[in-house]
Amino acid sequence: MATTQGQVITCKAAVAWEANKPLVIEDVQVAPPQAGEVRVKILFAALCHTDAYTWSGKDPEGLFPCILGHEAAGIVESVGEGVTEVQPGDHVIPCYQAECGECKFCKSGKTNLCGKVRAATGVGVMMNDRKSRFSVNGKPIYHFMGTSTFSQYTVVHDVSVAKIDPKAPLEKVCLLGCGVPTGLGAVWNTAKVESGSIVAVFGLGTVGLAVLVDLTDGGVDYSFECIGNVSVMRAALECCHKGWGTSVIVGVAASGQEISTRPFQLVTGRVWKGTAFGGFKSRSQVPWLVDKYLKKEIKVDEYITHNLTLGEINEAFHLLHGGDCLRCVLSMD
Amino acid sequence: MATTQGQVITCKAAVAWEANKPLVIEDVQVAPPQAGEVRVKILFAALCHTDAYTWSGKDPEGLFPCILGHEAAGIVESVGEGVTEVQPGDHVIPCYQAECGECKFCKSGKTNLCGKVRAATGVGVMMNDRKSRFSVNGKPIYHFMGTSTFSQYTVVHDVSVAKIDPKAPLEKVCLLGCGVPTGLGAVWNTAKVESGSIVAVFGLGTVGLAVLVDLTDGGVDYSFECIGNVSVMRAALECCHKGWGTSVIVGVAASGQEISTRPFQLVTGRVWKGTAFGGFKSRSQVPWLVDKYLKKEIKVDEYITHNLTLGEINEAFHLLHGGDCLRCVLSMD
Repeated sequence: MATTQGQVITCKAAVAWEANKPLVIEDVQVAPPQAGEVRVKILFAALCHTDAYTWSGKDPEGLFPCILGHEAAGIVESVGEGVTEVQPGDHVIPCYQAECGECKFCKSGKTNLCGKVRAATGVGVMMNDRKSRFSVNGKPIYHFMGTSTFSQYTVVHDVSVAKIDPKAPLEKVCLLGCGVPTGLGAVWNTAKVESGSIVAVFGLGTVGLAVLVDLTDGGVDYSFECIGNVSVMRAALECCHKGWGTSVIVGVAASGQEISTRPFQLVTGRVWKGTAFGGFKSRSQVPWLVDKYLKKEIKVDEYITHNLTLGEINEAFHLLHGGDCLRCVLSMD
Repeated sequence: MATTQGQVITCKAAVAWEANKPLVIEDVQVAPPQAGEVRVKILFAALCHTDAYTWSGKDPEGLFPCILGHEAAGIVESVGEGVTEVQPGDHVIPCYQAECGECKFCKSGKTNLCGKVRAATGVGVMMNDRKSRFSVNGKPIYHFMGTSTFSQYTVVHDVSVAKIDPKAPLEKVCLLGCGVPTGLGAVWNTAKVESGSIVAVFGLGTVGLAVLVDLTDGGVDYSFECIGNVSVMRAALECCHKGWGTSVIVGVAASGQEISTRPFQLVTGRVWKGTAFGGFKSRSQVPWLVDKYLKKEIKVDEYITHNLTLGEINEAFHLLHGGDCLRCVLSMD
């Protein structure tokens, strides 16, 4: 790996030049990592609905051209000045939700929403110089979610990468970069569901509200909305049991849409909350989730319904919108 | 007291014959308590905005004619068959939120919203025979909130009355029937505010959202909406700090009004909840609050700005709508 350290790497990446136009596999120049940055060789990347949402043009914060992707696994190629927690050769999962351990959010002990690099990742650049590390023939390409994993090489902030057990199969644990922790954490961290609770999950197909409440003698103890539909979010809250029912919003709604309900729903004891990355602290807990996977305490393989290559990414997005695809994992070489 | 036990008592009460028309002091017949019921001689009753709301006709569940009032203190006159927890002569506070200790809600340990008598109190009658104990010249007068304390005598369910220390001054602790516990409990029980937290209370005059957030470096840790205005409820949520801010709805909104926000507010860590009677278990915790008052650990006297008599109740409601009245306590004799 000494041959590429400090050099610009030219590699293949899927570039979204414009909203809602097919991604184009380009030769992309990836600049070396600056201070506090890590360059990662991505080996496997999965597709998530959030990538499709931004690609569609409906995300008002979406910037083009960009390299999408935020659920992946790879190996550190080189690190910038001052990076101590990972080194070349480490197996890692990029984390769109950073964890610096030092900001007001990290120190609060109440949230996983680290604020350290958000001002940069939110606008598609790196903190150091407010610029991108990606370019095509000199034209800058925006980063996405601080991860941009639909590239054979990417550059991330050191607070946005989790070092994992090298025994873990990267083609599987790449899913621990987003979808699986979000679901598990919504149940474990955000709702704190007790054993024996009655739970409703809105996401695979919406169950009629009245039937639900009827079946459960007054409503469910916990509900989860995993679609991003504001009407379903309301139904999910209102199917909760008076006095204690808690509804957690997991899905991402389209921009500009609002949720609403009668305040009586809350005054009579229901609680409305949400979750991002399942409330997990990314750098410290993703490795722990990988260990749980290795010990067979959590399932990951079962969510992977399709395997394709980077060159087939447009087909992969097409599959994601179909009914029989949960997760499609791309091999990046 | 033996002279009235088992007999119909004729006494003075303020009857709301119609919505939004002056209350009329009438000679009301109060039937003796049936099984599981308690007849209470009300000595002091305070006015609350919820009484005014129902009186105004805006409450779609409001029934007329009725006897309003739900924040009071008095002495047990007689008890019906099977009543064991109070006896004639006991000092009591009627509790619009019952506590039976046996229903699904009481047993859950998660809520104070006892469900035992709600089906009757919600429609202005008693559980036993689904009838009222109040009448004027044979015409039934509906109960209100299971308490109807604007009467010299009232009949309540035994699960809706808290026995308190007879040393407590009834003209003060009557406020522990509603307003004071609702506020204290919203902070202690529902939000569980930690010492040192930054808190915003919307209710005395709304503070500009931006200024607030600016003053507090990112938002408040907890906010409380005590007005019943759905726009303020939204502002109260959105002024909470990303990651952990919790907003509690205390105020009662007008019928048909809805709260709304962007789901992003919840997904980024804010929690929206509400409170009724501050989450206090009424029969078990109102006596404890009275004890705290006697030990000078909580303030009550300071909220009483006016003292009038039952005959002056219309003037008292007028005062309540003015700016300088927090609580007006009526002497009932």
